[in-house]
Amino acid sequence: MEAKKARMDSKGKVTVIGSGLIGRCWSVMFAKAGYSVCMYDVHEHQLSGAMEATAKTLVQFEEQGLLSDCHIHDATSASKMITTSSNMQEAMEGAIYLQECAPENLDLKKNIFTELDKYATDYIVLASSTSCIGPSKFTLDLVHKAQCIVSHPVNPPYHLKLVEVIPSPETRADVAERTVAIMKDIGQSPVLVRKEVNGFALNRLQYAVLMEAWRLVEDGVLTPEDIDTVFKDGLAPRWSLIGPFETIHLNAPKGVNDYCERYGANIENVCQEQCNVRTFGGATGDAIHQAICATVPVDQLPARCVWRDEQLGALSAHRREQATKEEVKKDGA
Amino acid sequence: MEAKKARMDSKGKVTVIGSGLIGRCWSVMFAKAGYSVCMYDVHEHQLSGAMEATAKTLVQFEEQGLLSDCHIHDATSASKMITTSSNMQEAMEGAIYLQECAPENLDLKKNIFTELDKYATDYIVLASSTSCIGPSKFTLDLVHKAQCIVSHPVNPPYHLKLVEVIPSPETRADVAERTVAIMKDIGQSPVLVRKEVNGFALNRLQYAVLMEAWRLVEDGVLTPEDIDTVFKDGLAPRWSLIGPFETIHLNAPKGVNDYCERYGANIENVCQEQCNVRTFGGATGDAIHQAICATVPVDQLPARCVWRDEQLGALSAHRREQATKEEVKKDGA
Repeated sequence: MEAKKARMDSKGKVTVIGSGLIGRCWSVMFAKAGYSVCMYDVHEHQLSGAMEATAKTLVQFEEQGLLSDCHIHDATSASKMITTSSNMQEAMEGAIYLQECAPENLDLKKNIFTELDKYATDYIVLASSTSCIGPSKFTLDLVHKAQCIVSHPVNPPYHLKLVEVIPSPETRADVAERTVAIMKDIGQSPVLVRKEVNGFALNRLQYAVLMEAWRLVEDGVLTPEDIDTVFKDGLAPRWSLIGPFETIHLNAPKGVNDYCERYGANIENVCQEQCNVRTFGGATGDAIHQAICATVPVDQLPARCVWRDEQLGALSAHRREQATKEEVKKDGA
Repeated sequence: MEAKKARMDSKGKVTVIGSGLIGRCWSVMFAKAGYSVCMYDVHEHQLSGAMEATAKTLVQFEEQGLLSDCHIHDATSASKMITTSSNMQEAMEGAIYLQECAPENLDLKKNIFTELDKYATDYIVLASSTSCIGPSKFTLDLVHKAQCIVSHPVNPPYHLKLVEVIPSPETRADVAERTVAIMKDIGQSPVLVRKEVNGFALNRLQYAVLMEAWRLVEDGVLTPEDIDTVFKDGLAPRWSLIGPFETIHLNAPKGVNDYCERYGANIENVCQEQCNVRTFGGATGDAIHQAICATVPVDQLPARCVWRDEQLGALSAHRREQATKEEVKKDGA
């Protein structure tokens, strides 16, 4: 009776394929936003553990006040939105959206999407969480290829809202639009990656940074610790508020065009110097590894990840508070 | 009598050359940290305005609680640490450190440093605030070349603590050490840039990002607004806490070395694709300019800078609070 009531209040059914870490995250995010979730796993015995874990996360969120601005405000009701199945056809029945969360392996993705294709309606969106495999690599042979897309979250997705949405050249426009709309509805921050490029957008930008950081260390300009300081106390707080384009817009009296006129030629010179790709590994890799291990040894990585997520949660709460203050100011003006 | 008392309590005298925006910032930072400051300007009439501005900033800081963890806790006492002079010899007399804040023009820097050289003792540190001119370009002909260095702050320096310290090949090691020590003492976060490279460290990293962001827009992959979203809701909050190297350390079970083994080859592939430098300007520049102007028109840039600084101040306060909580936790453990 309770379960039936939950389904009746649902905004729609979402299938989550895979009950590992990412599958659990997505299940929690869909459930608290008011979607009924069926979490599927080929390993039936993992599903009860996954149910316990999602319920526990939702209780923590309620205690931390993180459910207050969600569609469902209490952990018990949100948990009731989640069911499980080890039968794929059953898991997909009546679903409007599917989020695949299997390990990052091309053959595995191909096999899973071939199976999903069998049970897919003409309406369901088939989204993969992959961070690195372009959708055209595992969807173009399918009957429902036009309904396939990538929705790549950032870790941890509760506190880092970005989702990269990447259609293949065969994805229907309305499928991309519906994916973006659902991501917004569950409180995430989607960007549409309009062409399928290696690394998508986030990793391409991250890799550009890592490569230049690597060069600076390899060439003896900065220590690895100092690289992180340049971001923590310099570049990143500003970018977390306004991004790199608005940053340069505010750094010249007449905006972006003015900035390019003043500094463009030298930026191009520096970027020419950056056209040399270093090998990720070897002595420089060891030096960076050892330097970071001095403060975070490998055996303390899990604890440090918990700390990072707590800090990101606190930062996220701070950002919400500031946004609310802004709203109040606007309403008062 | 009051002025004499202030000087007696001083940690040492600092000369600030130039009473524009950056000179005023530095004067405030040195004064609240307990240094007596003599602000010099060739334009004597600008100095009274600069004194009013620094006094006003200090009052604002006191009201916002930003002086509470400084060496001097009240605005009135801090303001008394600042004097002015339009006589360079007088301004430099007895100073342990000098911070030059003239406009970014190589000939101007050369002229100023030639003059500073005349009045320099064998002890004073002669630091330039330049963001883009390497110290060897304007100091190598001087008698006191071994005492010359660059200390490049980030805007706004009150809330973004990073200072890049760049010695020339002729700078004495103890001069670099004393510069780093003074920057730490005034509450900033210095990194030593061990080789004089074009763009120093912060801008080299910023330019690598801008160039890839530019390519993604030019190639129709992302809109300019979406680029900023990737940073605001994805990359930057994480980097503001742990930097890019610790980020990858936490993103593989066994740390940096493990990350490089898993992802290094693909990172190198993506970075090969990034070895093409685009022109900063033209149609792409206009498109980015127009896109950012849709939310921040050029005539609203000054107001948006005020907003940015307020938000950075709030973020900085949040970070201090979190750091204090961490300290309390540690002490309790």
